[in-house]
Parts: sequence; structure tokens; C-alpha cells
Amino acid sequence: MAVDNALQRVDELLLSIAESAVPLLRQTSQHILGAGGKRVRPRLLLLSFEAAGGVDFDEAIPLAAAVEIIHTATLVHDDINDHGTLRRGRETVNSRWGGTYALLTGDYLFTRTYELMAPYSTELNRILARASTALVEGETMQIQAAREGTFDAATYFEIISRKTAALFVACAELGATAANPPTAWVSALSQYAFNLGIAFQLIDDVLDLASDSAHLGKNAGIDIAQGRGIAVALQSAGASDGKSSAAVEVKNNLSHDALQEAILGGYTVEDAIAKGRAKAQDFADQALAQLDHLPLSAASAALRDLAHQVIERDH
Amino acid sequence: MAVDNALQRVDELLLSIAESAVPLLRQTSQHILGAGGKRVRPRLLLLSFEAAGGVDFDEAIPLAAAVEIIHTATLVHDDINDHGTLRRGRETVNSRWGGTYALLTGDYLFTRTYELMAPYSTELNRILARASTALVEGETMQIQAAREGTFDAATYFEIISRKTAALFVACAELGATAANPPTAWVSALSQYAFNLGIAFQLIDDVLDLASDSAHLGKNAGIDIAQGRGIAVALQSAGASDGKSSAAVEVKNNLSHDALQEAILGGYTVEDAIAKGRAKAQDFADQALAQLDHLPLSAASAALRDLAHQVIERDH
Repeated sequence: MAVDNALQRVDELLLSIAESAVPLLRQTSQHILGAGGKRVRPRLLLLSFEAAGGVDFDEAIPLAAAVEIIHTATLVHDDINDHGTLRRGRETVNSRWGGTYALLTGDYLFTRTYELMAPYSTELNRILARASTALVEGETMQIQAAREGTFDAATYFEIISRKTAALFVACAELGATAANPPTAWVSALSQYAFNLGIAFQLIDDVLDLASDSAHLGKNAGIDIAQGRGIAVALQSAGASDGKSSAAVEVKNNLSHDALQEAILGGYTVEDAIAKGRAKAQDFADQALAQLDHLPLSAASAALRDLAHQVIERDH
Repeated sequence: MAVDNALQRVDELLLSIAESAVPLLRQTSQHILGAGGKRVRPRLLLLSFEAAGGVDFDEAIPLAAAVEIIHTATLVHDDINDHGTLRRGRETVNSRWGGTYALLTGDYLFTRTYELMAPYSTELNRILARASTALVEGETMQIQAAREGTFDAATYFEIISRKTAALFVACAELGATAANPPTAWVSALSQYAFNLGIAFQLIDDVLDLASDSAHLGKNAGIDIAQGRGIAVALQSAGASDGKSSAAVEVKNNLSHDALQEAILGGYTVEDAIAKGRAKAQDFADQALAQLDHLPLSAASAALRDLAHQVIERDH
């Protein structure tokens, strides 16, 4: 399929981006960019391009690489703040090379993305720039809410809108806009991507609740310690069965088990996971509804599949 | 004077960039962007614009803000790595808000610069993107050379070319290119800026050798601990009087005085400073020679003054 072929070329471009004149930055960048990962964002971008009538993938491939590098840069910086040791099945840059080089590696990836985007229009650059700002704002809000114990459902939703859904939206808008389709198609893909991003993050947080490190390829429990994602599982539960929806105070110095208990209140882990999945399904359904505004095509069918995969994934 | 008026508008734009939706990022950004500083880079950009025939400063002001923000972002991140406590006469973001928020503040400033640059041409974006990459590479090389004790004159020169001169060059090229002058003028201003940048960093490092914290407004001695700048003072001395020019091994855990002694070898601080200043003067002379390729104007006279100020400054 054309998109799979294009994704291979995205991977090649990612590795070429790592070609710094400074050997250390080459090593760290190759380490993290070469580790694979789900590549959900480049896939979303390329499928949006195709679903909007785009034909020549040459124009979309650097855009797909750009969103993946921005995403990767934020992961490298997040792993400094979270003291994460595993990422994409490998040691984190922070763990292997230390915080100073991890910080510089993230910065390097940001600046290379900027360089990669220079040939594109103001419109496309503005889309990615705003999403990048939103990512940083969302990450800041998350850390602050976790530290200050102010994590409630509204805050959680605002955080994941910024730190996850904003880049999904940028993927759809970059891909679609590059294909120059009717405005209504860009808008439908944008809303599809927003809802997909929320569903994706809900599932991510639910998996963190349940999984062990080996299974997820990153440090499960870290996100719990940050208080991320859990409030919503409770809130969605609270909305449906009347239990308390008060803000959840999360302490940073509790054990994994103690945290789970504190966070989940009256729920079992299994209950919370089931409720989180149900909430994610609601958003996926809203995402799927947007696809009705697009012409039927292999790409729109693949976007439909993507929404199902996001809900069904277990890692 | 027109440039001073434009610089005031740059300062206003800098503060508006700090207007994040996240109060914490607004506080940290305003703290560092509102602290003043020498504003050498925006001044260089605006004078290059005017010297190249630019008239309407409206186009150059966001560019001038962009280079200052990129510079500021790298300072905020450097202060994490260096454990600096003073910057521009204020507590560093790292010292006041901690490493996590300092990291995110630097990232935020990077993404806002990207947003600010979106309306500009591919050519201008590429100039700033490449300089930004060079900055990160130079900083990485510097830390690695200091840690591994591989600081020699060639390495030092490569480092300051990337971490300082590259952004000076970008300032000149952005300002000049925006005025759309003959290519030879852009080239002359670019070479002026490269040599000015090297002279500027030499003086910076010489001042670090000599000064105390209160005088410089940042932590003198930190740069010494990093081994920065000193090798060249020795090397330039070595070249002129035949003393050893071997690589200087710098240890991170020595006291300020012990470091000075280890670094300076047979030289007194006063000797090293004098030799560093003489070397900086050579580069300033090369910078000044480039201005002969430009038509005489108030702006080219101001660029001449700027080169003298860089050499003569004592803080």
C-alpha cells in the first residue's frame, strides 16, 4: 500500500535527520529515532493527505517526519523530567547519556524539525508551530497539576487536548492542507484527529494503569506518579454511576500500589480500565462520525481502521 | 535614532511572546525576557537591515525578537546544565523554578520563535533554523570537550563559531536579506558578523576569567569550570611567544582559584586577559574591514561603533 511505502521513506528521512556534525548528537538521535515506535502520527498525516485527494507523497513525507521528530523531542525531554529509563524498548537518552545530553538532544531535534519545515508555506508552519507550543503548555500544566494536587477531570481534559490531541490535529491539518482539498474536508479530518487523539491518550493512560514495564516498553507507573490520566477514568465513571468526581490528589512519593489505591478510590483496576476504555470509545465514535464527510476511499477506510486500532491496542 | 526606537518595539514584542495561556510559563518567560540584557543580537539585526538599505522596520522587528528569543532559550537551558544561579542580574529560571520548569520554559521559547517566524520566507527561516542547530551543536561540543578534557584551540574556535558566531551571522543575514540588497552587501555583513561574534565571545570569556559574579550579572567561574574560552587565550599567547599550546585539561571539581592556575599555566590572569583582548581585537579589525564594502550611512557607522563597543566592554 502506498502509505506503508511512504512510511518507510519517513523512517529513512528520520535517520538522515540524525546526521549531525557532532558525533554525540548523531548517536543519541539515531538511538531514539531508530527505535521505531508506533508511528501513529506520521501514519495519520499521510492518510489525511491521501484521504484529502493528495497523490504525490513526496510533499507529505517531510511533514510526516517533522511531526514524528517533534513528538520524539518531547519524549526525550519528558524522560528527563519523569526520570524514565525505558522508551520504545530501549534505554532512554536520559538514562544512557545523562540529563545534559538528553536536554541538548531534544533541542537538536526541535531545531532540525524547524529546518525541515522551512520550505513549506506559512500556513503549514503556523499549524505545526502552534501545536508545538500547545505540547509544551500541556506538559507544563500536567506537571504542575500533579505537583500541586489539582488534577480534576477538566484539567485532565485540557492537558491531553494540548499535549496529545493538538499534535494529532496538526497531523490531519498538515496532511490535508498539503493536498489542497475543499475546506470542509480539512475541517472533518481535523475534528476526526482531535477525537482520535483524546481516545489515544485515554487508552495510553489506561494501559499505564494496568501494565508492567516490559509489556509497554516504557516505565509504567511513572505516568501514575504524575497523576496523569487517572482522574478521567474516575470522572467518566463518576458521570455514569454517581460516584464522587472530586479532584484527585496525587502524591509523588507513594508506591505504585498505594498510588493505584489512592487514585482509584472505590474502583478496582479492572473497573477503572473498563471505564477508561468506554470513554475512549465515545471519542473514537465521534472521530469516526467525521469521516462521513469525506469521499469513500482506501485512505478513509484506513482512517476508520486506525480509530479501531487505537481503541483495541493493548500496548 | 530609528534603531533605538525599533529596539523598544522589540522589547514590547518580547514581552507579548511571553503571554502563554499557562500562567507558570508566562511568569518564567517574562522573568527572563523582561530582564533586559545587552540586546546585541537584535541591534546587529536591525543595523544590518538599515545598512543594507532597509527602511520599514516593521518587517525586521519580529526577526530581531526571534533571534533574541532563540538566544534566551539557549541561556535558560545552559543555566540548567551549568547550575547557574544568576543571569541578567536576576535569579536564573532554573534556580527559582527548578530544572523541570526551566527545561519547559526553554522549549516554550523555541516553539514561540518558530511561530513568530512562520510568516517569513523559506530563505529567512532556513537561515535561523541552521543557526539554531549550530547553537545546540556548539553547546554540546563545549560540554563534551570540557568533560573529556579535549579542549584545544581548534576545538575552542569551532565551538565559539557554532555557539556564538553562527547566531551573529544569522542576525546579519536575516536583517540584510529582508532589505533585499545586492548580494555582495549581504556577504560583507555576514562576514562582519562572524568576526564580531568571535570577538564578542573572546571578550566574554576573558571577562569571565577576571570578574566576580556581582559585576557580570551571571556566575563567573562557571564558564571556567567548563573550560570554555581559556584555551584560546593560551593558544594566542602560545602563538606569539612560543609557550606550550598543548590541550588544556580542565577538571570540574577544582576551586575557582585552582582552576585559574591550572588553566593559565605560566600566565598571570592579567597576561591572559591582555592576550585574549588582543586576539579579540584582531577579529574586530577583520569585522571592520568588511564594512568598507558597504555604502557609508548612519547604520554602517553604528556597526563600526558596535565593533568597538564589543572590544571595549567590561561587563
